[in-house]
Amino acid sequence: MLIVQKYGGTSVGDLERIRAVAGRVIESVKAGNELVVVVSAMSGVTNSLIEQAEYFSKNPNGADMDMLLSSGERVTSALLSIALNELGYKAVSFSGRKAGIITNSVFTKARIKHIDTSAIKAALKEGKIVIIAGFQGVDEEGNVTTLGRGGSDLSAVAVAGALNADLCEIYTDVDGVYTTDPRIEPRAKKLDKISYEEMLELASLGAKVLQNRSVELAKKLNVNLVTRSSFNNNEGTMITKENGMEQALVSGIALDRNQARITLRNIEDKPGIAAEIFSSLAGANINVDMIIQNVGTNGATNLGFTVPENELNQAKNTMKDILGDQVLLESDSAVVKVSVVGVGMKSHSGVASTAFKALANEGINIEMISTSEIKISMIVHEKYGELAVRALHEVYGLDK
Amino acid sequence: MLIVQKYGGTSVGDLERIRAVAGRVIESVKAGNELVVVVSAMSGVTNSLIEQAEYFSKNPNGADMDMLLSSGERVTSALLSIALNELGYKAVSFSGRKAGIITNSVFTKARIKHIDTSAIKAALKEGKIVIIAGFQGVDEEGNVTTLGRGGSDLSAVAVAGALNADLCEIYTDVDGVYTTDPRIEPRAKKLDKISYEEMLELASLGAKVLQNRSVELAKKLNVNLVTRSSFNNNEGTMITKENGMEQALVSGIALDRNQARITLRNIEDKPGIAAEIFSSLAGANINVDMIIQNVGTNGATNLGFTVPENELNQAKNTMKDILGDQVLLESDSAVVKVSVVGVGMKSHSGVASTAFKALANEGINIEMISTSEIKISMIVHEKYGELAVRALHEVYGLDK
Repeated sequence: MLIVQKYGGTSVGDLERIRAVAGRVIESVKAGNELVVVVSAMSGVTNSLIEQAEYFSKNPNGADMDMLLSSGERVTSALLSIALNELGYKAVSFSGRKAGIITNSVFTKARIKHIDTSAIKAALKEGKIVIIAGFQGVDEEGNVTTLGRGGSDLSAVAVAGALNADLCEIYTDVDGVYTTDPRIEPRAKKLDKISYEEMLELASLGAKVLQNRSVELAKKLNVNLVTRSSFNNNEGTMITKENGMEQALVSGIALDRNQARITLRNIEDKPGIAAEIFSSLAGANINVDMIIQNVGTNGATNLGFTVPENELNQAKNTMKDILGDQVLLESDSAVVKVSVVGVGMKSHSGVASTAFKALANEGINIEMISTSEIKISMIVHEKYGELAVRALHEVYGLDK
Repeated sequence: MLIVQKYGGTSVGDLERIRAVAGRVIESVKAGNELVVVVSAMSGVTNSLIEQAEYFSKNPNGADMDMLLSSGERVTSALLSIALNELGYKAVSFSGRKAGIITNSVFTKARIKHIDTSAIKAALKEGKIVIIAGFQGVDEEGNVTTLGRGGSDLSAVAVAGALNADLCEIYTDVDGVYTTDPRIEPRAKKLDKISYEEMLELASLGAKVLQNRSVELAKKLNVNLVTRSSFNNNEGTMITKENGMEQALVSGIALDRNQARITLRNIEDKPGIAAEIFSSLAGANINVDMIIQNVGTNGATNLGFTVPENELNQAKNTMKDILGDQVLLESDSAVVKVSVVGVGMKSHSGVASTAFKALANEGINIEMISTSEIKISMIVHEKYGELAVRALHEVYGLDK
């Protein structure tokens, strides 16, 4: 098999860890696989570089930042290659540029345009293990770029897609994707498989595992993703297409604490008012999550939505000028979002009512509800967040 | 003027120093100059990277080492550019590749083949200060390479040559080139000007200032070099062509402590014997310095030469098999080399005899003598080294 492995910051946290990663790479090679390995910067390195930049400027320009930040991954890739060569395995370290990763020119959050795999393929043909510095590429003018948060995962997925690899393994310090956060519900179980769509919906649960951008890219490029731990030999969680999988009714329960609710009452019920509000929020780069609007009465309507808790004040200020005097604005940051996710619910009725009943049985009031094809999200008071997660985890039998 | 400035490791030793360098760069820009700045890694960084590599391998492969080591200079260049942009001066940081520095593929000690200055020129045209990560380039296949010891100086000189710059300023932590080591002779004076040839001969004195490789390249490319301190505003020493300079009889006195003397007595006086000995030493990578052979008598001759002190044992072992039984090998590592350097001595007689008299007056025995057009070197017992330097410094009036 041709496998792309990606090791994150804690997996290559120090020299000893890099040696352990070398051992793991070798095991996979011994098992007969061809290996391409994407590495992050050693943990702490990127933050330390950012601090150095901030010594000079609170708002350093992107091109310089990318030149600066890209150095951390280069160091890791060189060290891992040195370790492998010393152990008798031919390896070569590539920068993002040498790996053929071409991006647009949006510094510090560039998007990959295409990958010229010729150098990677040539090295694989020579029997070499290819080690790629993650998180980085070059634009078409040859300037170094970086891919933003979770960028090394993106590098790995994009390379796996371009090489048509059999598997893309993302190594972190957690074992995989769980039915819910094990710190909230100790009976949470690791999932063997999950669809791209469910993984995307579980983002808030899986944020520490995989960024949505990487899952989206994997889905688009049809890359079989496995997320697993580099600290043990446990099997991880395979994230793949829905087809051919046994479709669980519900795969997991997610809790997102970073939510604040805004309700606008007595809005004039005319076309374009919602568009005006949300485009002003978008213009201020505020991420609106759930949006609920009911049919209005007497020419007025109510509009509810959630924003990240730390963006609440900014959201209120942004809307100040466009809301008429008659509009009442209420907000509440003491709320959390609990979500039930599962591909199976597409073809089953009753999943939502089961959730509502479970929360009612615990005396939990649901403030807002929003549903998609594979997700039911509910806003509840923050004091009920963990209780809601445990109740839902149990009612769908996820601990079995 | 178009000026290339180069700042070494101590000049960019920490963030505060980098800010000071930014200030110096801005002064030069304010004076109306176009600036290209080549930077080294912050002091300690390269050694720390080497230590990390050595954790994995005592003999890491060159390609990985170059990927590893090149990161230090990239960090400095990005930080300096961030500092300049913050202070309101447009700057851009370039890797060696982006600066167009193309080398051969001899990793860890690559040689520059040519420089494509188009990106540098384009940035200068936009009114930008160009900051280049020194010490590095790429080979024709796009692999990162480094230039070996003193590599950042080389980058600066090569870029200055390719741009036809008016001046190449090499900033270090010393004020320039002195008539001799001020720690030996406190009356040593800083030279305002010195020729390339003299600088090359003074290498052992100037090793901490400039590597010979850079001076040779400056001579070849006709680059006006200035070496000065980044810690004060003193004028430095200009290293340039001989022409048009007031030619001092003697420019400086150098002391090289890393010398051992070997004398081979009773060698068969036939063609090819010296060639055999020195090619065996060259094969063992031993750097032979002075070589002295007198006309032989009775079909036998004596051969004297010096090698670096730490290579003496290896040199003796190398020669063991090729010297006949009748040859007597004597060696002495308690010697130093004192050299008198000056372009003026080309056209003056008596310079050598003045030296010999000065040492004789101090009761110093000269064990070996070797002369070139602009240098007289003498091997003396190591206990007389400093005394010899002071005596020669005085007899040629260098303190005046």
